[in-house]
Amino acid sequence: MNRPVTHLCAHHLEGMSYRDADLVEDLIGKKTFSEVMFSQIMGRDARPVDLRIVDAVLITLMEHGLTPSAIATRVVYMSAPENLQGAVAAGLMAVGSSFVGTMENCSVLLDRILKADDAEALAREIVQAHRDTKKPLPGFGHHLHKPDDPRALKLLALAKAEPDLQGKWVAALELLARTVDEIYGRHITINATGAVAALLGELGIPTQLMRGFAVISRAAGLVSHIAEEQQDPAGRFIWETIDREIPYVGAGKSAHHQTER
Amino acid sequence: MNRPVTHLCAHHLEGMSYRDADLVEDLIGKKTFSEVMFSQIMGRDARPVDLRIVDAVLITLMEHGLTPSAIATRVVYMSAPENLQGAVAAGLMAVGSSFVGTMENCSVLLDRILKADDAEALAREIVQAHRDTKKPLPGFGHHLHKPDDPRALKLLALAKAEPDLQGKWVAALELLARTVDEIYGRHITINATGAVAALLGELGIPTQLMRGFAVISRAAGLVSHIAEEQQDPAGRFIWETIDREIPYVGAGKSAHHQTER
Amino acid sequence: MNRPVTHLCAHHLEGMSYRDADLVEDLIGKKTFSEVMFSQIMGRDARPVDLRIVDAVLITLMEHGLTPSAIATRVVYMSAPENLQGAVAAGLMAVGSSFVGTMENCSVLLDRILKADDAEALAREIVQAHRDTKKPLPGFGHHLHKPDDPRALKLLALAKAEPDLQGKWVAALELLARTVDEIYGRHITINATGAVAALLGELGIPTQLMRGFAVISRAAGLVSHIAEEQQDPAGRFIWETIDREIPYVGAGKSAHHQTER
Amino acid sequence: MNRPVTHLCAHHLEGMSYRDADLVEDLIGKKTFSEVMFSQIMGRDARPVDLRIVDAVLITLMEHGLTPSAIATRVVYMSAPENLQGAVAAGLMAVGSSFVGTMENCSVLLDRILKADDAEALAREIVQAHRDTKKPLPGFGHHLHKPDDPRALKLLALAKAEPDLQGKWVAALELLARTVDEIYGRHITINATGAVAALLGELGIPTQLMRGFAVISRAAGLVSHIAEEQQDPAGRFIWETIDREIPYVGAGKSAHHQTER
Repeated sequence: MNRPVTHLCAHHLEGMSYRDADLVEDLIGKKTFSEVMFSQIMGRDARPVDLRIVDAVLITLMEHGLTPSAIATRVVYMSAPENLQGAVAAGLMAVGSSFVGTMENCSVLLDRILKADDAEALAREIVQAHRDTKKPLPGFGHHLHKPDDPRALKLLALAKAEPDLQGKWVAALELLARTVDEIYGRHITINATGAVAALLGELGIPTQLMRGFAVISRAAGLVSHIAEEQQDPAGRFIWETIDREIPYVGAGKSAHHQTER
Repeated sequence: MNRPVTHLCAHHLEGMSYRDADLVEDLIGKKTFSEVMFSQIMGRDARPVDLRIVDAVLITLMEHGLTPSAIATRVVYMSAPENLQGAVAAGLMAVGSSFVGTMENCSVLLDRILKADDAEALAREIVQAHRDTKKPLPGFGHHLHKPDDPRALKLLALAKAEPDLQGKWVAALELLARTVDEIYGRHITINATGAVAALLGELGIPTQLMRGFAVISRAAGLVSHIAEEQQDPAGRFIWETIDREIPYVGAGKSAHHQTER
Repeated sequence: MNRPVTHLCAHHLEGMSYRDADLVEDLIGKKTFSEVMFSQIMGRDARPVDLRIVDAVLITLMEHGLTPSAIATRVVYMSAPENLQGAVAAGLMAVGSSFVGTMENCSVLLDRILKADDAEALAREIVQAHRDTKKPLPGFGHHLHKPDDPRALKLLALAKAEPDLQGKWVAALELLARTVDEIYGRHITINATGAVAALLGELGIPTQLMRGFAVISRAAGLVSHIAEEQQDPAGRFIWETIDREIPYVGAGKSAHHQTER
Repeated sequence: MNRPVTHLCAHHLEGMSYRDADLVEDLIGKKTFSEVMFSQIMGRDARPVDLRIVDAVLITLMEHGLTPSAIATRVVYMSAPENLQGAVAAGLMAVGSSFVGTMENCSVLLDRILKADDAEALAREIVQAHRDTKKPLPGFGHHLHKPDDPRALKLLALAKAEPDLQGKWVAALELLARTVDEIYGRHITINATGAVAALLGELGIPTQLMRGFAVISRAAGLVSHIAEEQQDPAGRFIWETIDREIPYVGAGKSAHHQTER
């Protein structure tokens, strides 16, 4: 088979190369973390607009309180505090198809709309198909934020204020949003993951890579949960609460439930 | 047991709180990712010097080429491309006691020196003990970079140029470095993880949390490996190369080695 | 929301309950690991035939040499030997849609055939659709084992010799196999994951749970890789080999490739 | 560097080799999962006594109810059900130094006692040192099972009934136990992990590999939690319970706590 190559990094006697740049001469002390992250991932220098948008997205995805991610990180950290990285890794595993990583599912729809001959017809077809099968439409709806998810509004407003973005992805999302309201006969909010999909699309980030930004951002969020766990531990409380709240049902004995059930 | 609390995040009808700030009003579009990461983890606003130092550290830890981390991420990504977060998590597991996470081991020594009544005597004791048992001294030595690790020099120079840092951690590392040269009778470089330990210490980041910054930074590095894997896949090449290079030895048959061994 | 319950386990003052059994009185010293694993997962006692089939499947899935799983485990173990569980977890992440976990994809097809009014017609439709789109048919074909995968033949022969199995899943797989040979106009082998899907189906294991048996079995395989790594380490060899074999291409310097490329 | 080799597995045209055995001819349908697991890990055939002891240990370590492991697995599975292996991997990360993996810490003590010139003196020294520093003694004590952990009693009774075991590890543990009672002035139970350490030591399993058996066994336990989650999901209940039970404290707004705190 063909030999693969890497453009990412090389070490040498006087230092290291990160793509075409020299780590010590060109990057440390001269660039921000977001800049180097962007250029390493995307293979091109970040424009100011790229940084504004990526930072906004990363900040949005960083935290959501005591989510499945945070719970997993905290109970694993309690069990193996010598292994901080394992606790973060456990929490990152929850960045999946159901939460956080869901921008991919919305981005797939935007991709299709952007390539369609008749974008409006395709949008109608997509929305109608979801409505008919009662499947949630990726990027739309929020159980808490009604009528509108304020994070989505803010992100889309940021993107629309950037003259250096083409606006095609945002427009595709807004077409989808109008179609949603029309076909469902009521207003359903664009949610944060819908807006994130559109913004990352505007930067040229491929759909299948978008979840990576959620992973980076959530890694930072989970480290802050570990920092809090070090000062005000919740791991054992989580364990004891759940062990007590979910009863055992069976013919055997149980400390919590000594009587027959 | 006492009920733990969280200061990190709350969701509410109009948006979300990140510590005392409002995500939509105060953070998105106004702060950088590094700023929000810092304040979420540390519980205080980042000063400009905090950001300069944290960014320098994160950039330094992001990449080191085809390391164990990157290899694990790439082969897992090939096997389960639907599961990008699992591939990153697999690579992060390699941020351990032997690589990347090693700043902790150096920081433990700096902590002890900073608390000692006689710092010089303790430094001599530490170095002598490592020399006597032929154990590597955390934060010192590099198989490639001689006489000096240019990343360490650059990071320490950055820190020393910052008037807002106390300089105590850097001074403790430099005391250790002078003692190393004296007791070993030759110059041994401070390496990148030694410098990282001193810089993060200057910012007030506790030893046991330092590895978290390696995890965040390396998460970004591993996402760039996945981006490259999507365009120029190396996973199968890694598999086939290693399967061929590590021969089976046994009484059974082998595709690579049909003859008796 | 409704309160969930657990049937799996309860601790109490005199011991523990595993489902309806008492761990100390009924299980330790009286049952095998496979028996208890089966009854915990399936919620019913294992018949002798269940154990014969499950053991055969677990043995088949345990090892495949220096696979992506084993490579990830070995390089992570080298990096963080204090964290054996992280090394196994990293390797397990490679049990995905492309390897090892693939029995699920085949089982989905068998499920559909078993529910069809006209099983033969559906089998033809499935095979034709895969052939038309040049997609590999899950459970069929092996790059190495031709004309037949001996593991698949052995597993199917075992199942067919068991009078207590209904044989419906095996029959569905064999119908699919005949259809494959007919439509492709040549013999394509049932592979190990195809046979595993049929055998686990015979035991009543749902499709979406099948991958769990691969995970358990591969965990045992990966622990044997760690045992070997402890005695004859390969981690650093893997790292150095891959670092050397995958060249850096870029404008920066590289230790391996000092000249312009 | 020297080229490593593997003794574990090779694939070839007619099948696969597992160590010196042929998978299809010698193992599938002829051996149990425990037998093949043991011989792959240990490099020698399992005697009947090895299987009895290993099975007893694996069964003991499989389950402990809604532990940190099970909680992590369940919330990750809810978040990414397409990725069963990631959910198991997340739970395995909790097999660490504080729970489940703790037999290592006890085994280290047994190792030292077995190598000591004066075993009794060393046992006293170890126990006294733990008592003086108020550190828990690995392998001893249980918050629930008093006066004795019935699992430990059962496991030790099994081992003592086996004439083919040397009994040295069990004797070392019992020496430690007598010393504990004497120095603490009251009876403290040997717990399950203490007994597991002694039993695995009797089989010649090195201390640093013992945690691997906990990982294999717990993988099976976590798959049964996923099986239950598929039928009676608890993931969202865990999330909502913990989100509600751990209040946010800060100047921002919170859905749960709208008033000032």
